[in-house]
Amino acid sequence: MKIVIDAFGGDNAPKEIVEGAVIALEKHADLEIILCGDKDKISALLAGRGAGRVKIEHAPDVITNDDTPTEAIRKKENSSLVRSFDILKNNDDVVAFVSAGSTGAILTGAIMKIGRIKGISRPALAPILPTKLPGRDVLLIDSGANVDCKPINLVHFALMGSAYYSILYGDENPRVALLSNGTEEHKGNELTREAYPLLKASSVNFIGNTEAREYMSGTIDVMVAEGFNGNVLLKGVEGAVGAVLSLMKRSIKAHFWSKIGALFMRKTFKELKGRMDVLGKHGGSPFLGCKKLVMKNHGSSSRYNIAASVDQAILLHEQKLIEKIEKALEVTNAAD
Amino acid sequence: MKIVIDAFGGDNAPKEIVEGAVIALEKHADLEIILCGDKDKISALLAGRGAGRVKIEHAPDVITNDDTPTEAIRKKENSSLVRSFDILKNNDDVVAFVSAGSTGAILTGAIMKIGRIKGISRPALAPILPTKLPGRDVLLIDSGANVDCKPINLVHFALMGSAYYSILYGDENPRVALLSNGTEEHKGNELTREAYPLLKASSVNFIGNTEAREYMSGTIDVMVAEGFNGNVLLKGVEGAVGAVLSLMKRSIKAHFWSKIGALFMRKTFKELKGRMDVLGKHGGSPFLGCKKLVMKNHGSSSRYNIAASVDQAILLHEQKLIEKIEKALEVTNAAD
Repeated sequence: MKIVIDAFGGDNAPKEIVEGAVIALEKHADLEIILCGDKDKISALLAGRGAGRVKIEHAPDVITNDDTPTEAIRKKENSSLVRSFDILKNNDDVVAFVSAGSTGAILTGAIMKIGRIKGISRPALAPILPTKLPGRDVLLIDSGANVDCKPINLVHFALMGSAYYSILYGDENPRVALLSNGTEEHKGNELTREAYPLLKASSVNFIGNTEAREYMSGTIDVMVAEGFNGNVLLKGVEGAVGAVLSLMKRSIKAHFWSKIGALFMRKTFKELKGRMDVLGKHGGSPFLGCKKLVMKNHGSSSRYNIAASVDQAILLHEQKLIEKIEKALEVTNAAD
Repeated sequence: MKIVIDAFGGDNAPKEIVEGAVIALEKHADLEIILCGDKDKISALLAGRGAGRVKIEHAPDVITNDDTPTEAIRKKENSSLVRSFDILKNNDDVVAFVSAGSTGAILTGAIMKIGRIKGISRPALAPILPTKLPGRDVLLIDSGANVDCKPINLVHFALMGSAYYSILYGDENPRVALLSNGTEEHKGNELTREAYPLLKASSVNFIGNTEAREYMSGTIDVMVAEGFNGNVLLKGVEGAVGAVLSLMKRSIKAHFWSKIGALFMRKTFKELKGRMDVLGKHGGSPFLGCKKLVMKNHGSSSRYNIAASVDQAILLHEQKLIEKIEKALEVTNAAD
């Protein structure tokens, strides 16, 4: 199996990306990796490791967050990102692409170079967060790639999120909820009220409207949201968690006995940190709705995040994520 | 000054409501209170306290969360809520109304019985949350009363929220931000992109688009949001804070040393709890955009929350909140 990696995407590129590739190669004996980027620099970092199973594709240019995505994809042909997409597109045996580069450029490149699954007009990113129940995580789709969605887009999010979750957690019937401002069917805005019956009629296990409060309650597996709302939810949660921990830190610093207590509680703080880092565990998120697997990693990804993203790409390929989405789409369309 | 209170609204009615009224009377020497509800029950609870400064308006009926708001306001003429609205409406010297009853019925009653400030089509609720900075709170408007807003509604939210915040915190120039999915002017959805230039041209101190992540950062005083989005933000934050504390509790229980540490950290946990309870401090939220002051208290309000809500009503009356909103509206309309 072959996977292409953008060695020059992300804050810690190229070192951490190359190291991540090496870890992945050690773990998966039948894996081959193509690293895109400056040949000399990648060679120096590899220092002979992965010989025979790594190919370097020379691409001296780099796309940064300052580039306009559409323009960069069109004009920076020799960038590590565009070259990666070309390799993914032109080689049937290359099954996935991993990058920690600019989100905008990756999404634009995925649509322009790889294309969408037939019937899906809006591909989406689906990050995963912990819930308050042990061992239960929750997926959010869409988290911000798509604003001003139509009802049918939400149905597609449900199908794609459900297929992705079922592979990741081995759960064939994940509970899918629609983000709204109340639980009753008549609650919500125009968009959610129109999407509700469509979701009910679709092939997913739709459990109805849910308030944002339930997001991390462990009673939902796939939270479907219009992209703007999903973005508000995801970032609002991030900010709130940060604010609580920051208030706590400040208070601990201010009180002698709290400082002592905090020393005893190290294990709990560590556990909490580990539980919050679900994204780190999975490495990256696939851009759902693309014809091939495009894994978007966080810009600050470490070698372990890159390796985890490769692990996930292999799993999603072996479990046929894209075929699963196509199948779900057929079933739903046939029911119309 | 006279204030009318719905003695039979909320989970802890009538006891806590009546006790709250007594506390308020003790604090404000020139205050008179009209308590609406079952006369005998209120009399028994008062047991002679507040004599000469409390009037009881007999209203034997009660509106609950199970009632349909519009129908209840129309038909339950003898309910404590409807009678309260009638008193507020028909008496110029009654300056405010406080209730911990059904949100839907209060909002509906406020619009049907009291009416909106001229020019405001969508009154709004504006709850307050703590930020991670000491002494800085943040107001969110709208938090869910209004879905599918138009750009002009967001401008009105900004004006009303700004006027309210400036009175509550003695800050004449609060920083107003627009909730979006990115900070740049071109970011957002159709609604926020249209609202942006209107906010820029308005009389408020508009600091631009803000991501949900910044909500509790202390860099924003008034967060303007379309109601559906505001609801997602507020409830998402509530849920996230609850989830973090729940994960922490579970971990503390599971580890011996963490349990010991938690004992030492009591002061910090108490401080955190106090900081999170900004709403309790203020008692209730005014329904902004109404012709008179209608204070909505949380259903679970205690006597102290009711008394705090009366405090707030007196402050907002003395500082002329409604005139301030009318004035801001004139200035903005004149600039058009």
